[in-house]
Amino acid sequence: MFFCHASTPPPFRCVFDCFLRCLFCMIVKGTIPCFKVYETEHSLAFLDISPVSEGHTQVIPKYHAVTIADLPDEYLADIGPAVKRVALATGASAYNVLQNNGKIAFQHVDHVHYHVIPKTSEKDGLIVDVNVSWPQKTATKEELAATLEKMKTRM
Amino acid sequence: MFFCHASTPPPFRCVFDCFLRCLFCMIVKGTIPCFKVYETEHSLAFLDISPVSEGHTQVIPKYHAVTIADLPDEYLADIGPAVKRVALATGASAYNVLQNNGKIAFQHVDHVHYHVIPKTSEKDGLIVDVNVSWPQKTATKEELAATLEKMKTRM
Repeated sequence: MFFCHASTPPPFRCVFDCFLRCLFCMIVKGTIPCFKVYETEHSLAFLDISPVSEGHTQVIPKYHAVTIADLPDEYLADIGPAVKRVALATGASAYNVLQNNGKIAFQHVDHVHYHVIPKTSEKDGLIVDVNVSWPQKTATKEELAATLEKMKTRM
Repeated sequence: MFFCHASTPPPFRCVFDCFLRCLFCMIVKGTIPCFKVYETEHSLAFLDISPVSEGHTQVIPKYHAVTIADLPDEYLADIGPAVKRVALATGASAYNVLQNNGKIAFQHVDHVHYHVIPKTSEKDGLIVDVNVSWPQKTATKEELAATLEKMKTRM
Protein backbone atom coordinates (compact mmCIF):
# COMPACT_ATOMS: atom_id res chain seq x y z
CA MET A 1 0.00 0.00 0.00
CA PHE A 2 1.24 3.49 -0.78
CA PHE A 3 0.15 6.86 0.58
CA CYS A 4 1.10 10.38 -0.45
CA HIS A 5 0.45 13.68 1.30
CA ALA A 6 -2.67 13.47 3.41
CA SER A 7 -3.52 17.11 2.73
CA THR A 8 -4.38 16.67 -0.96
CA PRO A 9 -7.02 14.17 -2.11
CA PRO A 10 -5.98 11.39 -4.52
CA PRO A 11 -5.36 11.12 -7.41
CA PHE A 12 -4.05 14.70 -7.62
CA ARG A 13 -1.65 14.39 -4.72
CA CYS A 14 -0.06 11.35 -6.37
CA VAL A 15 0.41 13.06 -9.72
CA PHE A 16 1.80 16.25 -8.29
CA ASP A 17 3.69 15.19 -5.19
CA CYS A 18 4.99 11.84 -6.26
CA PHE A 19 5.57 11.92 -9.99
CA LEU A 20 6.71 15.50 -10.29
CA ARG A 21 8.48 16.12 -7.02
CA CYS A 22 9.67 13.09 -5.12
CA LEU A 23 12.37 10.76 -6.41
CA PHE A 24 11.75 8.21 -3.66
CA CYS A 25 7.98 8.15 -4.29
CA MET A 26 8.79 7.32 -7.91
CA ILE A 27 11.00 4.46 -6.75
CA VAL A 28 8.21 3.17 -4.47
CA LYS A 29 5.78 3.27 -7.39
CA GLY A 30 8.27 1.54 -9.71
CA THR A 31 8.43 4.52 -12.10
CA ILE A 32 12.17 4.64 -11.44
CA PRO A 33 13.94 1.30 -11.07
CA CYS A 34 16.07 0.39 -8.06
CA PHE A 35 18.26 -2.39 -6.75
CA LYS A 36 15.68 -3.65 -4.27
CA VAL A 37 17.14 -5.23 -1.14
CA TYR A 38 14.01 -5.78 0.98
CA GLU A 39 10.35 -4.82 1.12
CA THR A 40 7.45 -4.96 3.56
CA GLU A 41 3.91 -3.60 3.32
CA HIS A 42 5.12 -0.24 4.68
CA SER A 43 8.86 -0.05 3.87
CA LEU A 44 11.22 -0.41 0.92
CA ALA A 45 15.01 -0.83 0.98
CA PHE A 46 17.25 -0.32 -2.04
CA LEU A 47 20.94 0.20 -2.72
CA ASP A 48 22.33 3.73 -2.77
CA ILE A 49 23.80 4.24 -6.25
CA SER A 50 26.54 6.49 -4.84
CA PRO A 51 27.54 4.38 -1.84
CA VAL A 52 29.98 5.52 0.82
CA SER A 53 30.71 1.82 1.36
CA GLU A 54 29.65 -1.42 -0.31
CA GLY A 55 26.10 -2.32 0.73
CA HIS A 56 25.09 1.28 1.60
CA THR A 57 21.29 1.02 1.52
CA GLN A 58 18.38 3.44 1.79
CA VAL A 59 15.40 2.22 3.82
CA ILE A 60 12.32 4.35 3.22
CA PRO A 61 8.63 4.34 4.18
CA LYS A 62 6.03 3.82 1.44
CA TYR A 63 4.44 7.06 2.57
CA HIS A 64 5.47 10.52 1.56
CA ALA A 65 6.70 12.44 4.60
CA VAL A 66 9.61 14.86 4.48
CA THR A 67 10.74 14.21 8.06
CA ILE A 68 9.90 11.67 10.74
CA ALA A 69 7.83 14.38 12.46
CA ASP A 70 5.20 13.82 9.74
CA LEU A 71 5.50 10.05 9.48
CA PRO A 72 2.67 7.99 11.06
CA ASP A 73 3.72 5.67 13.85
CA GLU A 74 2.87 2.48 11.94
CA TYR A 75 5.52 3.35 9.35
CA LEU A 76 8.07 4.20 12.03
CA ALA A 77 7.30 0.90 13.77
CA ASP A 78 7.73 -1.07 10.57
CA ILE A 79 10.97 0.52 9.43
CA GLY A 80 13.00 -0.33 12.56
CA PRO A 81 12.94 -4.09 12.00
CA ALA A 82 13.43 -3.47 8.25
CA VAL A 83 16.63 -1.55 9.00
CA LYS A 84 17.84 -4.47 11.12
CA ARG A 85 17.21 -6.96 8.31
CA VAL A 86 19.12 -4.78 5.87
CA ALA A 87 22.01 -4.34 8.31
CA LEU A 88 22.24 -8.12 8.72
CA ALA A 89 22.12 -8.58 4.95
CA THR A 90 25.16 -6.34 4.46
CA GLY A 91 27.24 -8.92 6.35
CA ALA A 92 29.05 -6.09 8.16
CA SER A 93 29.70 -6.43 11.89
CA ALA A 94 29.89 -2.63 12.23
CA TYR A 95 27.58 -0.13 10.58
CA ASN A 96 25.91 3.25 11.07
CA VAL A 97 22.25 4.11 10.71
CA LEU A 98 21.80 7.79 9.87
CA GLN A 99 18.49 9.55 9.32
CA ASN A 100 18.66 13.25 8.48
CA ASN A 101 15.76 15.72 8.83
CA GLY A 102 15.97 19.14 7.20
CA LYS A 103 18.34 20.68 4.65
CA ILE A 104 20.67 22.13 7.28
CA ALA A 105 20.93 18.59 8.71
CA PHE A 106 22.15 17.24 5.34
CA GLN A 107 18.84 15.89 4.03
CA HIS A 108 19.08 15.89 0.23
CA VAL A 109 15.88 14.02 -0.73
CA ASP A 110 12.64 15.31 0.82
CA HIS A 111 11.28 11.86 1.73
CA VAL A 112 12.22 10.16 5.01
CA HIS A 113 15.17 7.81 4.49
CA TYR A 114 17.42 5.81 6.78
CA HIS A 115 20.95 5.30 5.53
CA VAL A 116 22.35 1.89 6.52
CA ILE A 117 26.10 2.28 6.03
CA PRO A 118 28.47 -0.67 6.54
CA LYS A 119 31.77 0.25 8.19
CA THR A 120 34.53 -2.17 7.31
CA SER A 121 37.53 0.14 7.76
CA GLU A 122 38.37 3.54 9.20
CA LYS A 123 38.48 5.02 5.72
CA ASP A 124 35.19 3.78 4.29
CA GLY A 125 31.59 4.37 5.34
CA LEU A 126 30.51 7.25 7.55
CA ILE A 127 33.43 9.08 9.16
CA VAL A 128 32.60 10.82 12.43
CA ASP A 129 35.73 12.79 13.29
CA VAL A 130 35.21 13.80 16.92
CA ASN A 131 37.20 16.99 16.33
CA VAL A 132 35.16 17.98 13.27
CA SER A 133 31.80 16.23 13.39
CA TRP A 134 31.02 16.20 17.08
CA PRO A 135 31.18 19.65 18.78
CA GLN A 136 30.51 18.15 22.21
CA LYS A 137 30.14 20.28 25.32
CA THR A 138 29.71 19.32 28.94
CA ALA A 139 26.41 20.71 30.18
CA THR A 140 25.80 21.66 33.82
CA LYS A 141 22.95 20.06 35.75
CA GLU A 142 21.18 23.41 35.71
CA GLU A 143 21.48 23.69 31.93
CA LEU A 144 20.20 20.14 31.43
CA ALA A 145 17.28 20.73 33.82
CA ALA A 146 16.35 23.91 31.93
CA THR A 147 16.48 22.07 28.59
CA LEU A 148 14.32 19.26 29.97
CA GLU A 149 11.68 21.70 31.17
CA LYS A 150 11.48 23.27 27.71
CA MET A 151 11.18 19.83 26.08
CA LYS A 152 8.44 18.71 28.47
CA THR A 153 6.26 21.58 27.35
CA ARG A 154 6.33 20.08 23.84
CA MET A 155 5.65 16.41 24.78
CA MET B 1 9.51 -4.37 31.73
CA PHE B 2 13.23 -4.88 31.42
CA PHE B 3 15.23 -7.70 29.85
CA CYS B 4 18.95 -8.43 29.81
CA HIS B 5 20.92 -10.92 27.70
CA ALA B 6 18.73 -13.81 26.62
CA SER B 7 21.66 -16.22 26.81
CA THR B 8 22.03 -16.13 30.60
CA PRO B 9 19.13 -16.95 32.91
CA PRO B 10 17.96 -14.30 35.38
CA PRO B 11 18.87 -13.16 37.97
CA PHE B 12 22.56 -13.79 37.16
CA ARG B 13 22.47 -12.02 33.82
CA CYS B 14 21.04 -8.90 35.47
CA VAL B 15 23.67 -8.76 38.18
CA PHE B 16 26.58 -9.36 35.87
CA ASP B 17 25.58 -7.73 32.63
CA CYS B 18 23.62 -4.79 33.85
CA PHE B 19 25.05 -3.71 37.17
CA LEU B 20 28.68 -4.42 36.46
CA ARG B 21 28.99 -3.76 32.76
CA CYS B 22 26.35 -1.58 31.17
CA LEU B 23 25.91 2.09 31.97
CA PHE B 24 22.63 2.30 30.06
CA CYS B 25 21.17 -0.76 31.82
CA MET B 26 21.94 1.00 35.10
CA ILE B 27 20.06 4.07 33.87
CA VAL B 28 17.09 1.91 32.84
CA LYS B 29 17.04 0.31 36.29
CA GLY B 30 17.35 3.70 37.99
CA THR B 31 20.67 2.83 39.63
CA ILE B 32 22.16 5.84 37.86
CA PRO B 33 19.93 8.92 37.57
CA CYS B 34 19.15 10.62 34.28
CA PHE B 35 17.30 13.60 32.89
CA LYS B 36 14.36 11.55 31.60
CA VAL B 37 12.65 12.99 28.52
CA TYR B 38 10.22 10.20 27.62
CA GLU B 39 9.45 6.59 28.44
CA THR B 40 7.35 3.74 27.10
CA GLU B 41 7.10 0.09 28.15
CA HIS B 42 10.05 -0.76 25.89
CA SER B 43 12.03 2.46 25.47
CA LEU B 44 13.64 5.20 27.55
CA ALA B 45 14.85 8.64 26.40
CA PHE B 46 17.17 10.86 28.43
CA LEU B 47 19.38 13.88 27.83
CA ASP B 48 22.98 13.34 26.78
CA ILE B 49 25.11 14.99 29.47
CA SER B 50 27.75 15.97 26.90
CA PRO B 51 25.45 17.30 24.19
CA VAL B 52 26.62 18.32 20.73
CA SER B 53 23.61 20.66 20.71
CA GLU B 54 20.92 21.64 23.18
CA GLY B 55 18.33 18.87 23.48
CA HIS B 56 20.72 16.08 22.32
CA THR B 57 18.91 12.99 23.60
CA GLN B 58 19.67 9.26 23.79
CA VAL B 59 16.76 6.95 23.06
CA ILE B 60 17.45 3.39 24.18
CA PRO B 61 15.60 0.08 24.43
CA LYS B 62 14.89 -1.36 27.88
CA TYR B 63 16.64 -4.53 26.72
CA HIS B 64 20.33 -5.12 26.69
CA ALA B 65 21.54 -5.60 23.13
CA VAL B 66 24.87 -4.28 21.90
CA THR B 67 23.69 -3.67 18.33
CA ILE B 68 20.34 -3.63 16.56
CA ALA B 69 21.24 -7.05 15.09
CA ASP B 70 20.51 -8.51 18.54
CA LEU B 71 17.50 -6.36 19.40
CA PRO B 72 14.06 -8.06 19.17
CA ASP B 73 11.65 -6.54 16.67
CA GLU B 74 9.17 -5.35 19.32
CA TYR B 75 11.83 -3.04 20.75
CA LEU B 76 12.80 -1.77 17.29
CA ALA B 77 9.12 -1.15 16.52
CA ASP B 78 8.63 0.78 19.75
CA ILE B 79 11.71 2.96 19.52
CA GLY B 80 10.86 4.53 16.12
CA PRO B 81 7.80 6.44 17.36
CA ALA B 82 9.69 7.24 20.60
CA VAL B 83 12.45 8.88 18.55
CA LYS B 84 9.81 10.95 16.74
CA ARG B 85 8.30 12.16 20.02
CA VAL B 86 11.71 13.17 21.31
CA ALA B 87 12.54 14.96 18.04
CA LEU B 88 9.30 16.93 18.29
CA ALA B 89 10.02 17.75 21.94
CA THR B 90 13.36 19.35 21.03
CA GLY B 91 11.45 22.00 19.11
CA ALA B 92 14.06 21.85 16.33
CA SER B 93 12.90 21.87 12.72
CA ALA B 94 16.11 20.12 11.63
CA TYR B 95 17.79 17.23 13.43
CA ASN B 96 19.80 14.07 12.86
CA VAL B 97 19.11 10.59 14.16
CA LEU B 98 22.32 8.57 14.41
CA GLN B 99 22.58 4.99 15.62
CA ASN B 100 26.08 3.48 15.66
CA ASN B 101 26.85 -0.24 15.77
CA GLY B 102 30.36 -1.44 16.59
CA LYS B 103 33.45 0.30 17.94
CA ILE B 104 34.87 1.08 14.50
CA ALA B 105 31.51 2.75 13.76
CA PHE B 106 31.92 5.10 16.76
CA GLN B 107 29.78 3.18 19.26
CA HIS B 108 31.05 4.08 22.74
CA VAL B 109 28.41 2.44 24.97
CA ASP B 110 27.66 -1.22 24.28
CA HIS B 111 23.89 -0.86 24.50
CA VAL B 112 21.81 0.15 21.47
CA HIS B 113 21.19 3.89 21.47
CA TYR B 114 19.74 6.37 19.01
CA HIS B 115 21.17 9.87 19.18
CA VAL B 116 18.56 12.54 18.45
CA ILE B 117 20.61 15.63 17.68
CA PRO B 118 18.95 19.01 17.01
CA LYS B 119 20.60 21.06 14.27
CA THR B 120 19.98 24.75 14.71
CA SER B 121 23.06 26.09 12.92
CA GLU B 122 25.87 24.91 10.69
CA LYS B 123 28.27 24.92 13.62
CA ASP B 124 26.26 22.98 16.21
CA GLY B 125 24.94 19.43 16.22
CA LEU B 126 26.24 16.69 13.96
CA ILE B 127 28.53 17.98 11.23
CA VAL B 128 28.66 15.82 8.11
CA ASP B 129 31.39 17.37 5.98
CA VAL B 130 30.92 15.76 2.56
CA ASN B 131 34.65 15.99 1.90
CA VAL B 132 35.58 14.35 5.21
CA SER B 133 32.64 12.31 6.47
CA TRP B 134 31.15 10.99 3.25
CA PRO B 135 33.64 9.12 0.98
CA GLN B 136 31.02 8.65 -1.72
CA LYS B 137 31.71 6.70 -4.90
CA THR B 138 29.58 6.13 -7.98
CA ALA B 139 29.02 2.41 -8.37
CA THR B 140 28.42 0.75 -11.74
CA LYS B 141 25.26 -1.27 -12.35
CA GLU B 142 27.38 -4.41 -12.40
CA GLU B 143 28.93 -3.57 -9.02
CA LEU B 144 25.51 -2.84 -7.50
CA ALA B 145 24.05 -6.05 -8.92
CA ALA B 146 26.95 -8.06 -7.48
CA THR B 147 26.46 -6.42 -4.05
CA LEU B 148 22.73 -7.14 -4.14
CA GLU B 149 23.32 -10.83 -4.92
CA LYS B 150 25.66 -11.12 -1.92
CA MET B 151 23.10 -9.39 0.35
CA LYS B 152 20.25 -11.61 -0.84
CA THR B 153 22.13 -14.68 0.34
CA ARG B 154 21.94 -13.22 3.89
CA MET B 155 18.25 -12.19 3.90
